[in-house]
Amino acid sequence: MAKKNALSPYLKQLLEKGDLQYQTGISVDCVIFGFHEQKLKILLLNLETVDKWALPGGFIKKSEPIEEAAYRVLKERTGVQHIFLQQFHVFGDPDRSDASIHQKRYLNYGVKIPKDNWLLQRFITIGFYALIDFSDEKIKEVVSDETTAWIDINKLSHLMMDHEAIVLKALEALRSQLAYLPIGRNLMPKKFTMPELQKLYETILDRKLDRRNFQRKMLGFDILNKLSEIRKGGAHKAPFLYSFNDKKYQKALKDGLYGSW
Amino acid sequence: MAKKNALSPYLKQLLEKGDLQYQTGISVDCVIFGFHEQKLKILLLNLETVDKWALPGGFIKKSEPIEEAAYRVLKERTGVQHIFLQQFHVFGDPDRSDASIHQKRYLNYGVKIPKDNWLLQRFITIGFYALIDFSDEKIKEVVSDETTAWIDINKLSHLMMDHEAIVLKALEALRSQLAYLPIGRNLMPKKFTMPELQKLYETILDRKLDRRNFQRKMLGFDILNKLSEIRKGGAHKAPFLYSFNDKKYQKALKDGLYGSW
Repeated sequence: MAKKNALSPYLKQLLEKGDLQYQTGISVDCVIFGFHEQKLKILLLNLETVDKWALPGGFIKKSEPIEEAAYRVLKERTGVQHIFLQQFHVFGDPDRSDASIHQKRYLNYGVKIPKDNWLLQRFITIGFYALIDFSDEKIKEVVSDETTAWIDINKLSHLMMDHEAIVLKALEALRSQLAYLPIGRNLMPKKFTMPELQKLYETILDRKLDRRNFQRKMLGFDILNKLSEIRKGGAHKAPFLYSFNDKKYQKALKDGLYGSW
Repeated sequence: MAKKNALSPYLKQLLEKGDLQYQTGISVDCVIFGFHEQKLKILLLNLETVDKWALPGGFIKKSEPIEEAAYRVLKERTGVQHIFLQQFHVFGDPDRSDASIHQKRYLNYGVKIPKDNWLLQRFITIGFYALIDFSDEKIKEVVSDETTAWIDINKLSHLMMDHEAIVLKALEALRSQLAYLPIGRNLMPKKFTMPELQKLYETILDRKLDRRNFQRKMLGFDILNKLSEIRKGGAHKAPFLYSFNDKKYQKALKDGLYGSW
């Protein structure tokens, strides 16, 4: 273990006066899915002092709307901003909090958290999620004892508390959204082939899809423009290029893929 | 105004020791939609002491899962139980709480709430909703200064705090659910005609639907059995009787109405 450093002003303030600044007993956690080069990853923080991975999360200021708290926390801890976060679930198991995470973190600086400190109580957390092209997002490191990384969705391990369950619930929300809302306009290049779009769906669903079913279903949604140009030089069977029809895509976002009643 | 009664033991305990029993700053609220005889209603409590309608809501015990809190609160305040509650949204506007509601309620018993009392702080609330056949549910009155009623969705008025916004958000969740999940198995009689099913959708959506579109879409979902018997004696154009196909209905609940990928 590294030698003990002094407690940062941020951690000292959090411990001693956090309950005056923040709502107690409630937090936000962000599940940021990144899709790039046919891989689905999750944005995680590595808490070096406890050797665990954690979702970027944090507290809600006394007079702050919860959505603002989620955007602020994400930006402060990872640098990621200007994305669309959606609430997806509240995690309220009375046993989900793990006081030892905080205890170890502070003990690393030689500080013992008093038993009645607000950090050690039960926390209910509100989950937010987003799906972005992670090549667009520059990640910065802000808090001194943590590093940030994109971790492959299939290689999660050593997540703290119930954060793996939170990721799985977010993945469920994302997958069920595929069934009734369009997806991909910010993840695909402007022009793309049907197999390229299929690959996005396969990556999110983590399984192979039937090529003809997928094409029939996708064309049935009526959100694509078939372009007159074709992809040259590829070995693919379906070199036809498509783009999203912005107007129809927007309408489908509002009414659902199968239209309104 | 009625003469001042003594504060009930429940309200006294809530005021003086509630913060030891409950998580502070967080609550649950239940939006119970009742469908019966082609009407959509909401289960509300009338708080006589403040002359406002309120959603059945309450607090989360220190060691209670949030879902259990929602079921308990609903049962305690309305008697309604054995229904399926779903989380749909968290309401976290810092200005949503209204201390005056509590103040008036207690003042009615001659009690002034101390300024730093836990009841007067900011509360974030987790919304749960359900759609039930309200003829099945017997409502009982439990807390002395409130009465319970089913109020027509189009006749809401005098709701406390942001409860009207919570109802509208729940209605939005319910309506968007119509687009991708089956509905109605617990709301329709065992055998029903297509116009009867259409009426359920029209009531929830609060608008007329085209008869032929509706029938085509509904048959396309492949969750109905067309029965060999017909409705006799009716004046309807479509006397064919249908029932839900249990197996396909269950599958559609899981995979969505348009099937899995």
